[in-house]
Amino acid sequence: MAKKRYQIIAEELLLQIEQGRWHAGQKLPSLRSLADQKQVSISTVQQAYWLMERRGWVEAKNKSGFYVSSDAVLETQLPRKPGCKIIPCGLSQWRISLNSTNHDPDEIPHLFGRATPDLTLSSLNPLKKSLSRLARSANPISLGYGALQGVDSLRQQIARRMIDGGCKVLPQELIITSGCQEAICCALQAVTQPGDIVAFDSPTYYAIIQMIEAMGLQALEIPADPTTGISIGALQLAMEKWPIKVCVLTPNFGNPLGYLMPDEDKKKIIDLLNLHDVPLIEDDIYSDLDFRPGRPKAIKAFDTEDRVILCSSFSKSVVPGVRVGWVIPGRYFEQVEQQKYIVSLNSATLPQLAMAEFLEGGHYDRHIRRVKQLYAHRRDLVKDLIRKYFPKGTRISCPKGGLMLWVELPQSIDALKLSTAALKQGISIAPGPMFSVSDKYSHYFRFCYGSFDEIKDIAAVEKLGELAYGLSKL
Amino acid sequence: MAKKRYQIIAEELLLQIEQGRWHAGQKLPSLRSLADQKQVSISTVQQAYWLMERRGWVEAKNKSGFYVSSDAVLETQLPRKPGCKIIPCGLSQWRISLNSTNHDPDEIPHLFGRATPDLTLSSLNPLKKSLSRLARSANPISLGYGALQGVDSLRQQIARRMIDGGCKVLPQELIITSGCQEAICCALQAVTQPGDIVAFDSPTYYAIIQMIEAMGLQALEIPADPTTGISIGALQLAMEKWPIKVCVLTPNFGNPLGYLMPDEDKKKIIDLLNLHDVPLIEDDIYSDLDFRPGRPKAIKAFDTEDRVILCSSFSKSVVPGVRVGWVIPGRYFEQVEQQKYIVSLNSATLPQLAMAEFLEGGHYDRHIRRVKQLYAHRRDLVKDLIRKYFPKGTRISCPKGGLMLWVELPQSIDALKLSTAALKQGISIAPGPMFSVSDKYSHYFRFCYGSFDEIKDIAAVEKLGELAYGLSKL
Repeated sequence: MAKKRYQIIAEELLLQIEQGRWHAGQKLPSLRSLADQKQVSISTVQQAYWLMERRGWVEAKNKSGFYVSSDAVLETQLPRKPGCKIIPCGLSQWRISLNSTNHDPDEIPHLFGRATPDLTLSSLNPLKKSLSRLARSANPISLGYGALQGVDSLRQQIARRMIDGGCKVLPQELIITSGCQEAICCALQAVTQPGDIVAFDSPTYYAIIQMIEAMGLQALEIPADPTTGISIGALQLAMEKWPIKVCVLTPNFGNPLGYLMPDEDKKKIIDLLNLHDVPLIEDDIYSDLDFRPGRPKAIKAFDTEDRVILCSSFSKSVVPGVRVGWVIPGRYFEQVEQQKYIVSLNSATLPQLAMAEFLEGGHYDRHIRRVKQLYAHRRDLVKDLIRKYFPKGTRISCPKGGLMLWVELPQSIDALKLSTAALKQGISIAPGPMFSVSDKYSHYFRFCYGSFDEIKDIAAVEKLGELAYGLSKL
Repeated sequence: MAKKRYQIIAEELLLQIEQGRWHAGQKLPSLRSLADQKQVSISTVQQAYWLMERRGWVEAKNKSGFYVSSDAVLETQLPRKPGCKIIPCGLSQWRISLNSTNHDPDEIPHLFGRATPDLTLSSLNPLKKSLSRLARSANPISLGYGALQGVDSLRQQIARRMIDGGCKVLPQELIITSGCQEAICCALQAVTQPGDIVAFDSPTYYAIIQMIEAMGLQALEIPADPTTGISIGALQLAMEKWPIKVCVLTPNFGNPLGYLMPDEDKKKIIDLLNLHDVPLIEDDIYSDLDFRPGRPKAIKAFDTEDRVILCSSFSKSVVPGVRVGWVIPGRYFEQVEQQKYIVSLNSATLPQLAMAEFLEGGHYDRHIRRVKQLYAHRRDLVKDLIRKYFPKGTRISCPKGGLMLWVELPQSIDALKLSTAALKQGISIAPGPMFSVSDKYSHYFRFCYGSFDEIKDIAAVEKLGELAYGLSKL
């Protein structure tokens, strides 16, 4: 699946658009001038522009050339003065989340609502084999209560891999958890008391909101840019104004925006944390799903005072079903370790041993190379389908990694209604209101393409588009 | 391992002692009169008395006969006016718990501190085989995020078994958790707000105390009788006096006392809960380890208003390593379900499927029959060893099920010091201060005999006794 020349040119142009070199409505270079510049044929440039047109990034205007589309990228949400309030989300909001993500595939065959990776790949076979062999020969130690901190061999493997994210961590500095959710939950519980203010980017992963509510905390939403992430300016203002107790961020391909925070911003965040003596809970779960080679740095890579609590798991990169995650609590090690103990004692041993073998044997690297290509392809495919089947004015995020798209519908379309109507057709999506304590995402939804099936799922996107059209006319 | 006649007679007498028919210091029937009464030979009665003497229940007085030993059973803790305070336990107390339970068997070969079942039995093989087969052929559904509530087949099996405990529950009324700890944690979080008062029996499972502290709750210890459990009178007084938000109890073979609450008391507790509109978190984890046939009823069996949240797991009856537990939240279903979602999403699917097969195939019943005999034997063996090797005045609980003994040392012996000294010899015990927010158990410890090994562990009990002797002389 090596990329064709025209695809590379299209992506270069898109990057320039996203970086602000070309603005909405601006004319792009002519076919001839770009062909000269890139040393390719005119037809190659034409193919590149046609691809960009199909994806909705550019518009062809009758014979005068190609222009940057007015809805090429999601509008940047301008920093606003953030409000601080006890969040109103409760059981009903939680019920929406559950309805959008917790389905039996037999009942809802098109599960675009949940960020599940592809679980059908043969590159997962070594993991199944390890699990099978380890279970058959399980000794009393692996059937018993394991060490609270987790299996040593796995901690070693994870510590080694964290170097790619710019983090120097010793195996004994990390604790294995039952998935990333448990890691975040323990971290948040460890550093807060009821009533404390938690700052996070908006829109954000809905479970963060539900944790904040369940723990009696206060939510402070900070606006985020769909390309570069949380507004540093807004965060700075908020930290000056409010006694923020902890920040929660997913800097790399986060949920739902999929943005990639520039390293420069990561450094600035560390400066802010240090200045105000605040810890950060960093969700690193999507970082290995960078569509380019390698992975971006974690914010923790720039952490000079050991105040970042990095949380992650193999749920997005490998499989969620084994529930193997980890937390690197930094200076909060003892508090987080105690929380892990209280919440569920140790995590299951056998899946940890199997995952350690998967990493040691090089199977993880092979699997990751495979899924990066696959997900990049699915991102493009699904974007094309949404462009094709959804009402004019629909805009889509441009994640450079991860498993999901954030889709802005024309303002008249209620995403909750779309979600309800879609479920009746066997299709799940995650409606915008799940991702915020405010009501500003009523016409947004998250679409997860990780397990998108090119045979059985394309018609479902068409159906979803039809439903959106229907709702736009109401 | 059918019981001999003399063993049965000894146990009948012990039961009468525990029920108060014979008091400490009282003369027991003569050999001849008891032989007549039981229609057995005098030598059989003599064997019964000798057995009781070895166990420390009776004392032979020169030729005048056998008397009930003054330390035959643990002293009943008289109901006192319970105090209510923010508990002082913190990281240091938690560290003690961790040091006493979280060990690598390579470093600490004699793990009497942790309530681990026997993990070496061949009756566990069908579980390993199921796990192995299921892992090898794992489909995308079992590798993905499963249903939040858990696997249907397992919920059906558990619901069916709950009938033995007197509970009529539908499969959809229970939620699978990652062990009993997660079940209790979710239940407690679901029904409390910071500052609320939680009532529990004393001594109690240490993790309850740590949860109370971590959640900012207030602890109210209610005295408990080592044979029948929590003092109903004291609980009644406490509920009249304090705005108790929730009670936490383990009525059957609980941790650490191992008492068995009479059904009459279970009913009385339900009456109190109904009267004061209070929920109960019932830990049912040891109930299947009744040394008699069958299992005792749960408090939930008498629950007329659906206010008991029953928590349990297979960690004591089968293996802890797979982390499969469950919660039956009654009227608090939605709140507990939300907590489970927040804490760790769903639990791993493959171990649930394997456990369902273990139950469906009758392997669970066979395993339970085996371990009941084994643990009853180990209880007696370890009691004999403690009698033999520990200082005069040491008293031991008489659990009729479960995995542990509660040992009272002569008052001068500091159990924490004993624990520290024992660890240096490769022996772990759980010192009394772990089990209370007060300081009244400084000369107690918990001894878990579930995985006691008759070959390698006997010398360790002797060593422990020597250490206790040494400390008694300080």
